[in-house]
Order: sequence, then structure tokens, then C-alpha cells
Amino acid sequence: MAEPRRPDPGRRDRIIDACLDVIAEAGVDGTSHRRVAAAAGVPLGSMTYHFNGMDELLQEAFTRFGTSVSDEFERHMAAAADREEAAAAVVAIITETVFDSPRDLVLTHELYTLAARKPAFRALTNAWMARSRAALERHFDPATARMVDALIEGLTIHRALDTEPHDPRIVAEAVRRVTGI
Amino acid sequence: MAEPRRPDPGRRDRIIDACLDVIAEAGVDGTSHRRVAAAAGVPLGSMTYHFNGMDELLQEAFTRFGTSVSDEFERHMAAAADREEAAAAVVAIITETVFDSPRDLVLTHELYTLAARKPAFRALTNAWMARSRAALERHFDPATARMVDALIEGLTIHRALDTEPHDPRIVAEAVRRVTGI
Repeated sequence: MAEPRRPDPGRRDRIIDACLDVIAEAGVDGTSHRRVAAAAGVPLGSMTYHFNGMDELLQEAFTRFGTSVSDEFERHMAAAADREEAAAAVVAIITETVFDSPRDLVLTHELYTLAARKPAFRALTNAWMARSRAALERHFDPATARMVDALIEGLTIHRALDTEPHDPRIVAEAVRRVTGI
Repeated sequence: MAEPRRPDPGRRDRIIDACLDVIAEAGVDGTSHRRVAAAAGVPLGSMTYHFNGMDELLQEAFTRFGTSVSDEFERHMAAAADREEAAAAVVAIITETVFDSPRDLVLTHELYTLAARKPAFRALTNAWMARSRAALERHFDPATARMVDALIEGLTIHRALDTEPHDPRIVAEAVRRVTGI
């Protein structure tokens, strides 16, 4: 199908959003141009018009996802008035937000699996980690920011992929030990 | 193809090992009975003879993988004579073993993605975490063991999926802060 002379300016954006929906539903391996085009409601020809292949589309989609999650994290850190509030916000992020979004949980692990398989995608995980650390460095020194970021990662995964409830006091105590607050 | 009357007793084991090879190569979504049978060198009929469907095979394969990784972890913790040696072993595991095995990295994230998608597989991640914590509890109280386990998870992932080298001194300092050693 021929593209119109003045393509819909929002179309590329819609394809990227639809790609994330398809990944959440079918996994990276189940994500095809055809399936994303159907989900976005665009002709199949739009896919090759806007993206140089599936890897570029995946890069754009996961960049958008990582940016959205780290923007939200940055808002929490920016709202904290001091180190004490920042530490409390970290605890709240780990204990309250993890189970809220199965979609985010799936998308995060789809990205990690992709980056584990294909080192080229580690530019995305690297950028996401750098943004998280920068947000934490509003309140903590760079080394502590790295530790807190790793602690958030590990505690979040362990809470999400466990079948038993976790004691939120252990999260608070872990953050206290790492930050010294 | 009919099964022989006295099936090869090692065949089921070989299928499970072959399944892990196929997952490492093609991902969970690319893992089929046909592909695993070919990798194991067994007739396709063996698959349904030995396993009630793909989910049972995946359960067995990832149980073997998680048990193998946690056995290795348990050996390191058992070899530590005291808390100081245990803390040093944790640092060594994080800083030295991560990049050694791309296969383990991929298999771990394939399992996490599967468990994120299908809660039934969280019995496996739960069992794996319980074994890791039990190994750590040789030296640390249960709350500290949970924190150290989460720290290992987060630091390992961040080192593996980053494009920049990480300073091993930050790992040692993080373990020191969490364990108080």
C-alpha cells in the first residue's frame, strides 16, 4: 500500500506504542511487523517506511518504555526534599509499586532478556541505569546511588517473582543500611 | 514412533539438558518439542512419553538450572569459615562470575520473563530464592540474608547489562554496609 504524500505525523508514535503492547502480550519473539501494524491500525507498508527493521523498532519501543519508567522515578526523587524523604520514597517505590503493573514487570524482563542475548541492546539498559542513578544522585553520592539502584532492582525482582509475601520492614532496613539514614 | 519396551533410563535426563540448550539458543518462545527432540537425539514420540506438555518440560529444565546454580552458591557459602569469609565470597561471586557465562545470564532472564508472564512458574523462582537464602543463612540472620540475596541479584544484573566497567570496590562496600562486616 502506498504511503500518502503527507504521512500522519502521529503514526510513527502510535506504532511505537503498539509495539510495546504487542511485546507485553506476545513477547519479543512473538512481535512481528504484521502484528504491530495490526495493533497500531496502520498499513503494513508503514512499518518499513518508518523503521529500518525490527531491531530499530524494538530499540525505539524499549527506549520509550525505559524513559517513561525512569521519568516517573525522577519525579519521585525530585519531590523528595532531603535524603530522609528520598530514602522513604525509595522504600515506597519498592514496596508499593511493584505489583501494580504486571505489564511493566513483563516489559522490563523482556528487555533484560533481549539485552542478555544481544549486547547491542545494552545501550538501552545502560541509558536506563544512568538515568536512575542521576535521579538518585540528587540526594546520594554516586557510589551510594549505584548501591541503592541495585538494591531497588534486586528487591523489586525478588518481591515480584516470589510466591510469598515479603516483610516491608526488611526493605526499609536494607535502604537504611545502604544509605546510612 | 513406538517407544521400546525398556526405555533408555538416561533419556528423560538428556531431554531436560537438551531443553536448556534450546532455550539458551532460541528462547522459551522458540522452544518446541520437535526442536528439543532433535537436540537430544531422541524420537519426537519420546517427548510426550516423558512429559505432559511443554510447561512440564520447562518446569523440569528450569528446576535443574536453578538447582545447579544454587548448588554452586551453596558450595561457596559452605566453604566460608565465618561471616568475613562469607562476605568476601559474596563479593567474589558478584564481581568474578557474572561475565563468565553468557548462557547462565540468558537462561536466568528467560526464566524471569517466563515467571513474570506466568505466575505458575514463580514456584521455581520462589524455590531458587529460598535455596539461596538458606545458603546465606549459614552465616547471616534471615533478614540480612534476604538483603544480601537482593543485592547480589541487583548488582549482578546491573554489571551484566551495563556497557561500562563497574568498580568492584563499590560491590565490596555495598556488601559491607548490608552485612555490617
